[in-house]
Amino acid sequence: MSKVLQRLSPVFNPRSIAFVGASNSVTKWGFLILFNLLDGGYQGRVYPVNPREREVMGVTAYPSILDVPDAVDLAIIVVPPPQVLPVIRQCVEKKVPAGVVITAGFGELGEKEKDLERQMVELAHGGGMVLAGPNCAGVLNAHLSLYCLMPPFFPKPGDISMCSQSGNVGASMLRFSLHREMGFSKFISTGNEADLHTEDYLEYFGEDPQTNVILSYLEGPHDGRRLFQTARSVAKKKPIVLIKSGRTAAGEKAARSHTGSLAGSDEIFDVMCRQAGIIRVEDIEQMFDTGRAFQRQPLPKGKRVAIVAAGGGWGVLAADACSRVGLDVVRLRPETLEALDEILPSWWSRNNPIDLVAGLKPGDFINSIEVMLRCDYVDAVMALGGIGFSTVRAQGFRKSCHAERYNLIHLSELFVGEDMRTARGIIELIDTYQKPVIVASETSIGARPNLNPPVLAIEEAGVMVYPTPDRAAKVLARMVERALYLRNGETQE
Amino acid sequence: MSKVLQRLSPVFNPRSIAFVGASNSVTKWGFLILFNLLDGGYQGRVYPVNPREREVMGVTAYPSILDVPDAVDLAIIVVPPPQVLPVIRQCVEKKVPAGVVITAGFGELGEKEKDLERQMVELAHGGGMVLAGPNCAGVLNAHLSLYCLMPPFFPKPGDISMCSQSGNVGASMLRFSLHREMGFSKFISTGNEADLHTEDYLEYFGEDPQTNVILSYLEGPHDGRRLFQTARSVAKKKPIVLIKSGRTAAGEKAARSHTGSLAGSDEIFDVMCRQAGIIRVEDIEQMFDTGRAFQRQPLPKGKRVAIVAAGGGWGVLAADACSRVGLDVVRLRPETLEALDEILPSWWSRNNPIDLVAGLKPGDFINSIEVMLRCDYVDAVMALGGIGFSTVRAQGFRKSCHAERYNLIHLSELFVGEDMRTARGIIELIDTYQKPVIVASETSIGARPNLNPPVLAIEEAGVMVYPTPDRAAKVLARMVERALYLRNGETQE
Repeated sequence: MSKVLQRLSPVFNPRSIAFVGASNSVTKWGFLILFNLLDGGYQGRVYPVNPREREVMGVTAYPSILDVPDAVDLAIIVVPPPQVLPVIRQCVEKKVPAGVVITAGFGELGEKEKDLERQMVELAHGGGMVLAGPNCAGVLNAHLSLYCLMPPFFPKPGDISMCSQSGNVGASMLRFSLHREMGFSKFISTGNEADLHTEDYLEYFGEDPQTNVILSYLEGPHDGRRLFQTARSVAKKKPIVLIKSGRTAAGEKAARSHTGSLAGSDEIFDVMCRQAGIIRVEDIEQMFDTGRAFQRQPLPKGKRVAIVAAGGGWGVLAADACSRVGLDVVRLRPETLEALDEILPSWWSRNNPIDLVAGLKPGDFINSIEVMLRCDYVDAVMALGGIGFSTVRAQGFRKSCHAERYNLIHLSELFVGEDMRTARGIIELIDTYQKPVIVASETSIGARPNLNPPVLAIEEAGVMVYPTPDRAAKVLARMVERALYLRNGETQE
Repeated sequence: MSKVLQRLSPVFNPRSIAFVGASNSVTKWGFLILFNLLDGGYQGRVYPVNPREREVMGVTAYPSILDVPDAVDLAIIVVPPPQVLPVIRQCVEKKVPAGVVITAGFGELGEKEKDLERQMVELAHGGGMVLAGPNCAGVLNAHLSLYCLMPPFFPKPGDISMCSQSGNVGASMLRFSLHREMGFSKFISTGNEADLHTEDYLEYFGEDPQTNVILSYLEGPHDGRRLFQTARSVAKKKPIVLIKSGRTAAGEKAARSHTGSLAGSDEIFDVMCRQAGIIRVEDIEQMFDTGRAFQRQPLPKGKRVAIVAAGGGWGVLAADACSRVGLDVVRLRPETLEALDEILPSWWSRNNPIDLVAGLKPGDFINSIEVMLRCDYVDAVMALGGIGFSTVRAQGFRKSCHAERYNLIHLSELFVGEDMRTARGIIELIDTYQKPVIVASETSIGARPNLNPPVLAIEEAGVMVYPTPDRAAKVLARMVERALYLRNGETQE
């Protein structure tokens, strides 16, 4: 096991946790976070620590961490600020290898409190202990059902990991992922980063076999040189999607009072990101969209895109959106027109976007996508509409008073079946041709309340259904960016 | 009643509809659209017309429109292309004042078919009849429960109207609105615009008392001069949010093969929009976000914004996003700092964004928003997080095995109650201070599956909860754009 895996393993893969500051008082973090930890079904052992309680939430409590009868891998520390140092001292005595200090009121307040942070780190290091936080929202490893977090969000296991200098930006990402069938591997709210820094987490995620995509929200790096050095080697293996806030003067000022970060020149940071292969995005939604695209899709070889649209307007918007972000909406070659002529009705657009709208027969959509994937002059396909739309209609049929007379139940099953075949077909085509198929449809907007099974199926397989052509095009441009970076890297070496 | 209201009234406010091409064959549009019309609960009378059926979906059918025993305000025409002209001839004989031709296969195919369109219009005009379409997806007036559309989407009544040169872009907007408690007034898919053009619909919506916000998707105007003249007078009263696609070369080519539109110079179109007060957006989501903001919110007087954030990271992202779109993140004046010092814990950020995260007491969020609205140097407030978050926690409490021991049901009621007070409080503050409060919270992402009541309450009141600070900032910039346009108009007149 590599050094960083060993060092951070007790933070993300603890076999046992001492929860110091566990509380039966329902409005305290010592209750709320422990509640989430127990409710999430963590697979290891949990030892609540509280000198005035014999048990918390039905679990035996211990007066101090020194009284815990077993070895402790990770100490979660939620005690008031003055007690943090004594607790860390006890952790060192108990030989606890890692702690997550959730308690706030340190470096973010001023110099005096920053000094306390330094003492905290000195103490821990003396005992070979690593610290996350302070002033953080906790840690998550969905593969262990470890949801030790302030927000009550429990995403399913997956292969995306995130480190976030803001607890609530991280919480938003968890929330986004819950809504769209995205699994999480690990998440950490890095807080003031007194000991472990974003740089450490990136290095760890780079080595972690359960992580394939890395997300990071950053206000200011502690060690810019190390950040980019780490990123440069990690990005060769795994995509790093990063928000660096404090971009503008107003944002920089805000970051300073949030985590005390100094933002530095944004232009230089931007150039450094490009050189290190970091994919820098502007906001939470873009990060979500982009991260999701790197989960399952192969990378495009270049920027040549074909658009298959079950609807003219979406096709036009997609062509505009692709051009805007620098993708190349290819001209169809005669042999491709012929191939499509064979499967489509005579009045199809004979143009890219391939507009299928009127007279669409079962299979037309998926067959057209396959024709385009076969073309050696096409690097990626955007598939618009055509996913889950018939299912929405079928849902209306089922409730209808006309259902019996017109045999609409049967028809609705045919409709859903055809949608499901399209959904599965797209996943198969991606795997067969090893080219990305970026899917967009407004049915994904309402996928959850109606549980649109085809949209759900495609997202569960790791392919996001973007709600607009614009968001789909932006994502594809990021994938091209990464593909070019990796290829240039190969050329140079 | 103004001329345009009178002329288009039978399209949007028919007292009776003849559905020509009604069918009992479940896969035909003559079935599917009629199904939606009947299923939507239209309040007027519906007369299916089909020479081979005595009834369709339980409603008496007539061999031709001439056999319908009553007056007909609107003919929906879904017959095959060769029958469209004869049907219009009968409509004229029957003195039907309006028709919606859904049938495709005309001007979008070529010159010969364009000629048929011209004959169609000539016939209709000779009998004083107006035509929507051909090649369109139908018409909607939610106030009459008139859902005569290809897609099975039934938004509730509201005050937003849309005309769309693409049926599926329009359908997406209806779908978006369904998901987020946005009501619709009227919607029309304009199709090939053989007779009635986007210009006519804009003029109509401008006069329509049930419309307060106008959306338009356009590939190419038929009469640019009239479009901008109409927009210029309508935009003085109501915001027009427009997507004009075919912006790039690839998009223009796509638009040409979709609706036969010639896009023209995009730069000139852009300048003309600005002069006419049209708010031009790029994609469907931006149109939705922006349209929603004009529904209830008052316009800001200027671009000076205060950010109140229940979470540091969101505040930093918002400050960046606001700066990026040209908003002014104001510096707090000493008297404002004092006023906030009185209500907030000592460690609040003392900076704009106003970061409340640690130690937030009930009322802190709403009270801080009010302090900022009172400032004469603040034109708008962005309220981030703090809406519906405790409700998510409360939902977890209710299912817990610890619920009884810790009285968590009671606590969850308190949590939801506090969230609801905040939601209602924001609506009240908007009305009291007549300044916009732009709300963003990731809880809106998952509002529907869990039915988050505070998020729902605020959206039902007409205020959207944006999922990211970025989208919130973009919308606020559009509101400032409109406010400036209206003010400059006043100065000039």
